Amino acid sequence: MKALVYHGPGRKSLDERPLPKVVAPTDAIVRVTRTTICGTDLHILKGDVPTCEPGRVLGHEGVGVVEHVGAAVAAFKPGDHVLISCISSCGKCDACRRGMYSHCATGGWILGNKIDGTQAEYVRIPHADTSLYPIPAGVEEEALVMLSDILPTGFECGVLNGRVQPGSTVAIVGAGPIGLAALLTAQFYTPAQIIMIDRDKHRLEVASTFGASACIDIARTDPVEETLRLTDGAGVDCAVEAVGVPSTFELCQAIIAAGGTIANVGVHGVKADLHLETLWDRNINITTRLVDTVSTPMLLKTVRAGRLAPKQLITHRFGLNRVLDAYDTFSRAAETGALKVIIEVA
Amino acid sequence: MKALVYHGPGRKSLDERPLPKVVAPTDAIVRVTRTTICGTDLHILKGDVPTCEPGRVLGHEGVGVVEHVGAAVAAFKPGDHVLISCISSCGKCDACRRGMYSHCATGGWILGNKIDGTQAEYVRIPHADTSLYPIPAGVEEEALVMLSDILPTGFECGVLNGRVQPGSTVAIVGAGPIGLAALLTAQFYTPAQIIMIDRDKHRLEVASTFGASACIDIARTDPVEETLRLTDGAGVDCAVEAVGVPSTFELCQAIIAAGGTIANVGVHGVKADLHLETLWDRNINITTRLVDTVSTPMLLKTVRAGRLAPKQLITHRFGLNRVLDAYDTFSRAAETGALKVIIEVA
Repeated sequence: MKALVYHGPGRKSLDERPLPKVVAPTDAIVRVTRTTICGTDLHILKGDVPTCEPGRVLGHEGVGVVEHVGAAVAAFKPGDHVLISCISSCGKCDACRRGMYSHCATGGWILGNKIDGTQAEYVRIPHADTSLYPIPAGVEEEALVMLSDILPTGFECGVLNGRVQPGSTVAIVGAGPIGLAALLTAQFYTPAQIIMIDRDKHRLEVASTFGASACIDIARTDPVEETLRLTDGAGVDCAVEAVGVPSTFELCQAIIAAGGTIANVGVHGVKADLHLETLWDRNINITTRLVDTVSTPMLLKTVRAGRLAPKQLITHRFGLNRVLDAYDTFSRAAETGALKVIIEVA
Repeated sequence: MKALVYHGPGRKSLDERPLPKVVAPTDAIVRVTRTTICGTDLHILKGDVPTCEPGRVLGHEGVGVVEHVGAAVAAFKPGDHVLISCISSCGKCDACRRGMYSHCATGGWILGNKIDGTQAEYVRIPHADTSLYPIPAGVEEEALVMLSDILPTGFECGVLNGRVQPGSTVAIVGAGPIGLAALLTAQFYTPAQIIMIDRDKHRLEVASTFGASACIDIARTDPVEETLRLTDGAGVDCAVEAVGVPSTFELCQAIIAAGGTIANVGVHGVKADLHLETLWDRNINITTRLVDTVSTPMLLKTVRAGRLAPKQLITHRFGLNRVLDAYDTFSRAAETGALKVIIEVA
């Protein structure tokens, strides 16, 4: 089969690889129909993710059709149309019993990281019963690729952890795909304001059409002053950090209201300053989270009900044979205007 | 009347001051019978609290008897025996309506900070109806001085924010009065382990008699290795930071389990490093809080029921005329073994 393979920092190619096989009785082999590229794949290619070794097939998002199942798989059978979760989980360990699937003792984020991933014609999914979701009839497949990772990530790590409530004031720092996913799903809870903060004019324009109540372009406007102005000097109840660098995390600290929550979504490579000298008495929360995908069934229902339209995050489409062009387009998002790119495998 | 007055960094004296008067109709004047000294008073004397200006009567803890009330005070009358909360709150502003009394628009921590405090024969209490608590008959007065600040602080900022639950593993970094208050009140929830971490052998011995399941003396033992050993490598579900310096806050980051909560209680004067590069995917919470004293009525009930014995935190007693000796004893706690010192005013 064809697969996009990581060959060490800065190196990748579309290679011919053997078909994956059932290894454990809980495995399923899925024929991938559509997949996508995540910002985390770019992190891997920078060499920032040491758990991902050269030779790995990348990708942790996708939809497809079950091809084979191991003897212990009970929830799926060959021919089933499935959504692949970016998180594999056994459903049985202590972490899984708490719903913290991201920290499954034998799973977590392993696809396209510790084991071969979805940017290929076929993929082996461990713990298939609890790591795949049936795709309901009548739901467009392409849009669901957004439910493998970015929508549950924006929702769980940003909106749920950020405790967005009716009437809340929310700021989302970073209007990339994850920040936009948080913007879309924050609206489930009818906050009073959602302020989007970025330096990319195009992404802020998109945010505006996606329901942001205000957009702050940090290339032109001081984001602290403007956020305080928009919130009558109080700051925001919820600040979602969707970039992953120290300066944006510190911006969240400067705009958070007393009693508010900073929900970190960004993948950080270095430490940040925490200004406890001003925050110790501010009754704030700071949360971190690797998505657990506990919300995937709920998100599927909102898509099916027409209350969430993830397809609008898709800007480009490529066949698997053009996956290198897809990476190029995605990695130059500031120029290409790319949000999410779909790889059509079959 | 006699009052302990702050005269700028490093300077204090027992002075003669005029009696406080009712200024607003919501005020009460309380004749103080017992008060105490808080670590925060020492911070003020170091010049660390710029809101507290020279000339201020210090102190934000105490019990006494109502002497006068303003025309709008409905819950108290002269002669009532009362507990003074360290937090003054109007009960009416947005913050108060959310139960976040610490951020009351016209209150918060103002006693012995922005207005004259309790280390005096009399004190003016603003917003008396919502800033005093009636002392139930049959409860020993002295023990209740511990309920003005340290017990609600240890409980709300440490135990409640730290989400201590039955079966939790808890580490409390700092075995001073606040850390010990967290230790006592954490036991309401029957955690599986409470590990106390300090460098003061005497305080750790006290912690041991107060119910700690393990004590780590950081002068002799690596606290990270030992905490991980005690928790089968997982780290703790709840780490309470009860010191207020960067190194102890960073220690909490090194011992927190996936899914755990770092509850900051310490008063910090400088920023700390937050290791987001290792914590971004650990599903943790970090909380800060100035005590709201929302738990004071509940804590009064636990004392009355004999389920909490705050008196054991009291190590020394002085008359008001010896308040300077009391400060000396409290500030040299490592030598004197002082935990909380009682000032007997009348």
